This record gives sequence, structure tokens and C-alpha cells, in this order.
Amino acid sequence: MATLSTLMHLECSMCTKSFDAKQLINMCPTCQSPLFARYNLEKAKETMTPKALKERTHNTGSLWRYEEVLPIQQKDYMLSLGEGWTMLHHAKRLGDHIGCPNTFIKDEGTHNATGSFKARGLSVAVSRAYELGAKALSVPSAGNAAGATAAYAAAAGLQAHVYMPQDVPLVFRVECEQLGAHVTLVDGLINDCGQRAKRDAEKSSIQRFDLSTLKEPYRLEGKKTMGYELAEQLDWKLPDVIIYPTGGGTGLVGMWKAFSEMKQMGLLDGKRPRMVSVQSTGCAPIIRAFQEGKKHAEPWENAKTCADGLRVPVAVGDFLILDALRESGGTAVAVDDSEMFKYTKIMGSHTGIFPAPEGAACLAAQIKLLKSGWIKSDETVVLFNTGTGLKYFNIYTTM
Amino acid sequence: MATLSTLMHLECSMCTKSFDAKQLINMCPTCQSPLFARYNLEKAKETMTPKALKERTHNTGSLWRYEEVLPIQQKDYMLSLGEGWTMLHHAKRLGDHIGCPNTFIKDEGTHNATGSFKARGLSVAVSRAYELGAKALSVPSAGNAAGATAAYAAAAGLQAHVYMPQDVPLVFRVECEQLGAHVTLVDGLINDCGQRAKRDAEKSSIQRFDLSTLKEPYRLEGKKTMGYELAEQLDWKLPDVIIYPTGGGTGLVGMWKAFSEMKQMGLLDGKRPRMVSVQSTGCAPIIRAFQEGKKHAEPWENAKTCADGLRVPVAVGDFLILDALRESGGTAVAVDDSEMFKYTKIMGSHTGIFPAPEGAACLAAQIKLLKSGWIKSDETVVLFNTGTGLKYFNIYTTM
Repeated sequence: MATLSTLMHLECSMCTKSFDAKQLINMCPTCQSPLFARYNLEKAKETMTPKALKERTHNTGSLWRYEEVLPIQQKDYMLSLGEGWTMLHHAKRLGDHIGCPNTFIKDEGTHNATGSFKARGLSVAVSRAYELGAKALSVPSAGNAAGATAAYAAAAGLQAHVYMPQDVPLVFRVECEQLGAHVTLVDGLINDCGQRAKRDAEKSSIQRFDLSTLKEPYRLEGKKTMGYELAEQLDWKLPDVIIYPTGGGTGLVGMWKAFSEMKQMGLLDGKRPRMVSVQSTGCAPIIRAFQEGKKHAEPWENAKTCADGLRVPVAVGDFLILDALRESGGTAVAVDDSEMFKYTKIMGSHTGIFPAPEGAACLAAQIKLLKSGWIKSDETVVLFNTGTGLKYFNIYTTM
Repeated sequence: MATLSTLMHLECSMCTKSFDAKQLINMCPTCQSPLFARYNLEKAKETMTPKALKERTHNTGSLWRYEEVLPIQQKDYMLSLGEGWTMLHHAKRLGDHIGCPNTFIKDEGTHNATGSFKARGLSVAVSRAYELGAKALSVPSAGNAAGATAAYAAAAGLQAHVYMPQDVPLVFRVECEQLGAHVTLVDGLINDCGQRAKRDAEKSSIQRFDLSTLKEPYRLEGKKTMGYELAEQLDWKLPDVIIYPTGGGTGLVGMWKAFSEMKQMGLLDGKRPRMVSVQSTGCAPIIRAFQEGKKHAEPWENAKTCADGLRVPVAVGDFLILDALRESGGTAVAVDDSEMFKYTKIMGSHTGIFPAPEGAACLAAQIKLLKSGWIKSDETVVLFNTGTGLKYFNIYTTM
């Protein structure tokens, strides 16, 4: 059965050239920049109305509720394990504690298969690769993207080859193995994993489709649904500030794309939120570039942090992240590991959400910005907890 | 704002005496048996219709959709972190692999806060204790119930005291600590934890309400929603067989209660499923009692299994579990740890769900029952994966 997808074509985010979307494709063949999916939004808005959305539950509720602005053409290829439509918690006790009562947490640790927001990007990217005929997939990952790739590949019956740093916590490796993926550990960081994946793919007899973030068009599409959900859950009125932990930055770029699409569809009026990137003091390439007013970020040397998702020294979409921060009037904040430890327990004991360190980093950043006056106490602030703290429990045992 | 709850009173499951539901109460004061909540089902069925339910999403969807048959009276006390309304997966690839195409998995590992079905019982029990004025809670646990208690207590701002065996995997302890609970490790099993919790409570200056399963009336009410969801997700037609991993057995007893309530409300016709209890060969008190035709189960000596949730040597509700198995024409199956290891990966790689060993045990049991002919290949079978495999990753590293 056909979906309501209004996908039209792919467009390069840098040189704006168009490409056929009915092919397995990675980056722009001309300039090697990320490709964006473009939709017929005039058509999408006819069926994707606030009223129609209220009636969509799609089994238990998932990001597939926004099928008009997602790329899958046939329902049989929509892989579903629990991806998105996560809770937006009004964290009242926490908000009172920190003096910002309208503090919300978008909790990506529950309602997402494999316990992280990576399920969003990979449910859509694996579904689309499956629809377009891929037989084997390959991905470099700091940890969570590997698990999500393994899960959706298993759901579809595709081969998954995942590459992680050799010091990745054991839980990530076990998860991938039990989901049937082929796991390779690499002496290095996520960028080294990407290079190794590429070399292995060249030698493979079965062609492997590379799912590196922003190096194929559709993980971004899955991630952008965080923006759609936020709008729908806040009754189509966006918050004043969004605080987002930034590794590869696909979620931030995705939300920014979503806000633009929603505006074109007449789903939003009023101003867009100020976007805040949070990174670790041990790996802060975006923050440095933001502060120095640069268009691109230099690679970060000797990246080190307990928050695996933030240990990303080079982001393919750096210029897209920086554009979104600047266009939105946002900012960028560095948090050190000891603050992440401290604020994990503060968030946990005031909300019932055991966050990943990346989620705790957002709370630490919010408190800095409240202190400096950049956030006012009566503003509405959304923190993204990108995954469950369960996968990181080992970092608390060495304290 | 008032809920649609039709709660009337509490009734002893053994001596059938009635008690006022507007009090914090544990077991039947007369015969020390579990108390069941009773509702005005004639009234409940007026609003809780299949059509009305379709329109209930309650933020992201949760077990609170069944508020008519749950005990909370005021919406402000419904604590919500993601509890229930979990996915029912038609596991097509797995079903084809094992020769039973209509195999479904109810995946409690995603969509439940703290990654397990314990969120169901404890969301309802903590909410109700909060509504009735409790300030401090106490619970003995094999692991998952402690995490869920800590989470909902944190959401409400109540003190949580959790007691776990000292050899519980570290992840459970870290989770509780980061959620602000007071953790005590006990040299023994869950029943020993229960005794220690009781002793500590007697010495405490703030009264602690005991949330031991089936020793207060409302964890059962949370768990029974698995039965409601199953019916709703299968369009009000129950499966032929339900396979359920049985520790304390509250979920199985709860579903059996739900089927009875639904029948009285006219939501179900046709026959009820055959219920199958799965335990570990290292701790199988219910299976032994079932086979020996006994009303109660003797305590199991030297209980040992990697599946923490099955390491329950004595179940308060033993007679209720055994009644449900017998009334339904069901059975009881023991699975050893090596089978749980084997079937974890088979389930994982054929579905994308990384199950807890308890979930894998259900698949092992299904295969035994298919081989013996007790389950026919054209029957509809639902397996319960009670939690995410992530919390158990350490058991795979010692292999």
C-alpha cells in the first residue's frame, strides 16, 4: 500500500543541484556536500493537518505519523520498533528547583528502540535503503547509531556492518552482536571508524550502503521529526529556547529543516526558537568555530569525554549547524564531564528520568545561561535528553 | 481535575471480604492475602468504548488510557514517564523461521520508563500511594522494580528506599542512585530483601509504605493493562496462547483479571487464551506445583539463574498464578540459562528487539511447545519480552 509521502527529489545543501530520489545515493556527486530531501509541501499540507494528526496513532505512535514529509513510498517498507513520538515532560519539580518553571525535557531514552534518538534517523534511513534495494549496510558510530542500525537491519533482514571505537563501552558491542550485526572495533574515533568502514566496503563482495550521518539523505529526515513532535506536543507553538547536545549535529540541523518546512506548510507562525549547541570541554569544535565566527569547524585534537555521543571531532554538517545557531540568534556552550555527572543525578532525582550524560549536559548549559541572563526565568526551555543513562552506567562506577 | 476512575472498593482475593479503598493498605488484615481493586464496570463501559479509546493518546500514549479501570481519582496524581501502550510486533521473520507465522512479541523494553514492564505496576502503585498521602516508599526487588520505584518516586518527590540482592548487576544499582533512591544491598534473594525492608521500616521515623508486589493492591492494576492493550491492539480478539515469564507472576494474574473485567464490560467475546508460565530450571516453584497439582507452591531452594526477574523462590500470589494456568487450559515450562542465551540472539537478529533473558525464555518455551504439538503452527501466539536486554549485557561477556 502506498504511503502519503510527497517526496520529490534530492537537493544539495551547498551547490543546490537536484538529483533523482529513486536511487541509493550518498553525498552530492558534484561538491561532496550533504543532500536534502525535498517534498511537495503544498500537497503535504492538505492531509497533514493538526486535526488529522490527532487521529493518527499507528500502533503505539511513532514518527511515521508524519509520513507526508518522510521518504518511504510503500507501507511495507516502514520498519517500526518504537521510533520517536517520545514524551515531552513538563519537568515541574526540576524547573522550580533551578528557577525556570517552564522547563521541558524531550526524553529520547524511552519510546525509542535501543534507548536513544538514533532510532529516529536509522529507522528512516534503513527503511529507505531497504525500499531502494540495499542488501547490506555499513555505519561508523560512537555507539548508539551502531545499535540502531543493527536493530533496523535485523527487522528488515539486511546485513549490518558496524564500526565503533575499541574503547566503546561493552554494552554497545553486546547490543549489536545480539542483534546479529557484524561488529568491528577500531583503534581511533568515529572518523577513523568511517575510514575503516569505507576500506572494508571496497573489498566486500556484497555492496554495502554507507549510512554515515549526513553522508546519505535520510537519517536527517528521521531526526527532523523531533522538530515536528515538539511543535505538535506544544500545540503548534515553539518554545523560546532549545538546548541540544551536539555531536554530528544532525538532530539540530534536522529540527531547523523541520521548522522551515512547517512554516511553508502554514503549521507554524511566530518566531523560531533560539537554538543552543552543547558540547564537551573535551571536544568542542562547533563552539570554537561559533565563537571565532567561522563558517566551518576545524577538527578537534585529542577529543575526550565520557559522553560518547559528543566525542565527534569532525562534523560533516558543521556549516549547517553553525548556520542554524546564527540564524536563530542562538549560542554554543561547553560543559565539562564533572558537570555532566553532577547534573545527571539532579535531573534524575527531580524528574524520574535517568539521562545520558549528553542530556545532563543540556541541564548544565541551561543553568549557565540562566545565570548569565541569556535565558530569562519566565522563558520556555526544551532540553533534549538524547538517550537513556542505562548505557552509560559504567562511568558512575569509576568515580 | 477528576479522572474517569470507577474504583469502588478493595476485595480480598482469598476470603472475599471488602475494604475501603480510600486508605493506604497492604494485604487483607484478616487473612493476609492479596487485595484486588473492584470497579463499577457497568459505569466504566459507558465511556471506555473501543471507539473512544481510539481517540485517546494522552501525550504519547500510556496505560493511563484505561483510566476508568485504574484507581487514580485526580489527574494531578497520574505520574507519567512512559508506562505501557507498548508495541505489539508481528514478528514475521521470526515466525517464519520457527514455523509459527502468527508469532507476536509484546515488547516491554521500549515505551516503558527504566526499560522494563515494572514501570506499569509502579506507575500505578506510586501514583496511588502519592494520592493517598504516602511520603516514603519501600520495595524489595530483583532489580527492575527498584529502578521503576525510584523513577516514579522521583517524579512525585517522594522518598524511595529500595532493597536488592548484593549480587544484582551494577546497572540496577547505578540507575536507582542516579534517580535519587536510597539503596540497600542485601546478602540474599528478593524474599530476604523484603524482610530487611520490613525491619528497616519499623525503625524509620517517616512511615514507609511497602510496595512489595501483591502486598499492596495497585501494582496488579498497572500490570493488568498488558491484557487491555493486547485486546485493543488485536482489535478485541485475544490470541490462542500467551507465553509469559513468571517471577512474582503479577503480570499473568493481572492479565487474567483484565480478561475477566473486559468480559463483564462486553469488550470481549470468544474464548480466553491458554496461559503459559515460563520459569528457569534453576528456579521453578510454579512449574513444580503445577505439575504436582498443588494449590500453593513450595519455596525453591538455592534459586539460581541469569534472569534476575525469574529468581523469585516464593511468590505471594502463587495460588492466583496456578488458578489462571489451570482455568485457561494452560501449562508451565522450564527453560535453562543456555537456552535463554541462544534464543536472545535468535530473537534479536530476526526482529530487531534485543530481549531480556526472560523474553528469550518465552521463545525457547514456544519452540518446545511447537515441537511437542501443544501449540499448533497456525495458532496465534504472543510472547512477552518483559524488558530490554541492555540491563543484562554483562551476562554475555562471561561466555
